[in-house]
Amino acid sequence: MISCPDIEHIRDAARKLHGIAVETPFLRWPEALPQGGTMLVKAECLQRTGSFKFRGAYNRLCRLSDDEKRRGVVAYSSGNHAQGVAQAARLLNIPATIVMPRDAPALKIANTRAYGAEIILYDRWSEDREEIGRRLAEERGLVLVPPFDDPFIIAGQGTTGLEIVAQAKALGINLDAVLVPCSGGGLSAGIALALKAESPQTSLWVIEPQGFDDTTRSLETGAVQSNAPNAVSLCDALLLPRPGRLTFPILQAHGGRGLAISDDLVLDAMAQAFLKLKIVLEPGGAIALAAALTGHFAGQSIAIVASGGNVDPALFAQALNPR
Amino acid sequence: MISCPDIEHIRDAARKLHGIAVETPFLRWPEALPQGGTMLVKAECLQRTGSFKFRGAYNRLCRLSDDEKRRGVVAYSSGNHAQGVAQAARLLNIPATIVMPRDAPALKIANTRAYGAEIILYDRWSEDREEIGRRLAEERGLVLVPPFDDPFIIAGQGTTGLEIVAQAKALGINLDAVLVPCSGGGLSAGIALALKAESPQTSLWVIEPQGFDDTTRSLETGAVQSNAPNAVSLCDALLLPRPGRLTFPILQAHGGRGLAISDDLVLDAMAQAFLKLKIVLEPGGAIALAAALTGHFAGQSIAIVASGGNVDPALFAQALNPR
Repeated sequence: MISCPDIEHIRDAARKLHGIAVETPFLRWPEALPQGGTMLVKAECLQRTGSFKFRGAYNRLCRLSDDEKRRGVVAYSSGNHAQGVAQAARLLNIPATIVMPRDAPALKIANTRAYGAEIILYDRWSEDREEIGRRLAEERGLVLVPPFDDPFIIAGQGTTGLEIVAQAKALGINLDAVLVPCSGGGLSAGIALALKAESPQTSLWVIEPQGFDDTTRSLETGAVQSNAPNAVSLCDALLLPRPGRLTFPILQAHGGRGLAISDDLVLDAMAQAFLKLKIVLEPGGAIALAAALTGHFAGQSIAIVASGGNVDPALFAQALNPR
Repeated sequence: MISCPDIEHIRDAARKLHGIAVETPFLRWPEALPQGGTMLVKAECLQRTGSFKFRGAYNRLCRLSDDEKRRGVVAYSSGNHAQGVAQAARLLNIPATIVMPRDAPALKIANTRAYGAEIILYDRWSEDREEIGRRLAEERGLVLVPPFDDPFIIAGQGTTGLEIVAQAKALGINLDAVLVPCSGGGLSAGIALALKAESPQTSLWVIEPQGFDDTTRSLETGAVQSNAPNAVSLCDALLLPRPGRLTFPILQAHGGRGLAISDDLVLDAMAQAFLKLKIVLEPGGAIALAAALTGHFAGQSIAIVASGGNVDPALFAQALNPR
C-alpha cells in the first residue's frame, strides 16, 4: 500500500472514474464581486450522491480484490462519505455496512439506506465510531473504508482538482486561489496535490466552521491543533476534532492557509447559491462560497468548491428566510 | 426576415451562442423510475439568467444593426424573457426597456433591473402588454423583441435541443421522448426542429399547467384553442392564453403531443429536484419533471427540460413543506 498519493495516483483515479463520476460543471458567478475579480464554482453538489465523496469512495472500492469485494466493506461517516461508499458499493456489487451518528441529517441516513447499505446508528457523544468500525471489520471480515486518511480516497477526491485546472484553462482563466471546505482534509489534500502538479501558481485555502478551525490553526502554528469538545456548528459535514494524519502533512507541504467562517455567513451563502446559481448547497458545502463572499479575495480570480448539497428541507428553508 | 426557422438557423444560433451561453449539464436521475426506464434532466436553470430564455434573446439581439443597437430594444415578459433580454442587451451594450406585470415574482423583477434594464410595470388584468410594447417601440424607435413568435428566438431556444441530442448520444442513449414545458411554444418548437433533423425517432411532448393546456388541446383537435380567462396556476412562466402563430404550426407539423399537470404535482417535482438533483427549479421549470414522475412514460428513455430556476424563496420553501 502506498502511504502518500502523488499526481500519478490522481490521474489514475481520474481514469477509473471516467464515465462513472460526473465531471461537474464549473459555474461562473453571475455578478460582479464586491471588490472585483472572478469567481468560478465547482458544483460538486451535482456529483453522484450529492457530494464529492463518491469520487474517493469509488476509487477505493474499485481496487478491492474479488475476495474482499465478496466479504464487503464498512465505513463510518456523518453522511456524505456514507452515501458515497453505499453508492460505489452498489455499483460494484459489494455489500456495505455504514456506521452513522444518530443525529446525522435524516436525508443523509435515508439516502444511504436507499443505496442499499446496512446502517448502524451510534451516539456521537458517548460512542467512538472508529472503534465500532474496527470491531465490525474484525468480526465480519469487512474492509474498513476510512473517510479521508487513505491514499486512494485522497487521490479520488483530488480528481476534483484536476477538473478545476482543466476547466479554468478552457475558460482562459489563471486561478489565483482555490477555496476548499475542510474537515478531515481528504478533498483539500487531493486538490493541493493536483494544483502542485498542474497549476503551481494557484494557492490553496481551506475553509472551516468557526470553532472547528483545527486545520487553519495547525497550518498557522505548524503543529497539529484540536477543537474544543463543546464546539457546535450547522456544518454537520465538517465537525471532526483534528486534521488527518496523511492529509495534514500534504496541506502543510503545499503552503495551504485557512479561514474560519460563522454559521450566519454559511446560511447567507446557501441563500446566495439558491438565488444566483440555482444550486442546492448544504452548510458544509456552502462554506467556501461564504468565505469568497466576505471580500477576503478581492480582485482575485478564484475557484470555490461547492462540495455537497445533502441538506434537510427545514434547514434549507431556514437559510432562505431573511435574517 | 425568414418566417419559419429550420435546422440551419438553429445551427447558426449555436455558433453565435458558443462560449456565451452555458452548455448546461445533462443530469442523470439518480434512482430507478417507478416503472423502469431512464431519465436525463437538461438543467437550463443553470443557464445564464437562470432560464433557457437567454439563448433566444441573445440570438435575436446579436443580429441587430448598429443603428438598431444604438436605439435599443423593448420586450414584454412575465420574467424569464425579461431577464434574458436584459442580460443579452447588457453583453451587447444595447439599452433595454422591459414591460413586466406588477405581480411577477419579485426575484424576476429585481434581477431584470440588476441586469441594467429600465422596467415598466403594468396590470396583468386591465392592460395589454403587447399594446404597451408596441407603443414604446413606436414612440422611442425601439426594436420589439417578442418572447416566442420570432424565428431567431425559436432558433436560439432550439439550441437546447441540439445539445440534448449530442449529450444523449455521448451517453449512448437513444431517446424515446423529450418533455418540454410549454406556454408560447418557443422552446418546444425550437426543440421540435432540432429533433426532427437530428433524432427523428424521438417524440416531443409539451407539458402545460392544468387550466393552461391550450397547446395540448390545440394539438389534439388540430385547431387553435384558448384557455379560460379565469384560470390560475403557480406556474407564472406558463400563463399565456393561446399557442403562438409561428410556434404552433411547427409543433403540429412535428407530431407533438401534450400533457396537463396540476400545481400539486409541480410542487412535488420542485421538492424532488431539490432532494435528488440538488438544483433549484421554479414551478414552470419543474413541470416536465412532474410529468415524468407521474409514470406516464414508463419504461422509456426520456429527457426532460428543467427550463428555469427563478423562484421566490417563500414559494420554494412552500414546495419543500410536506403536503
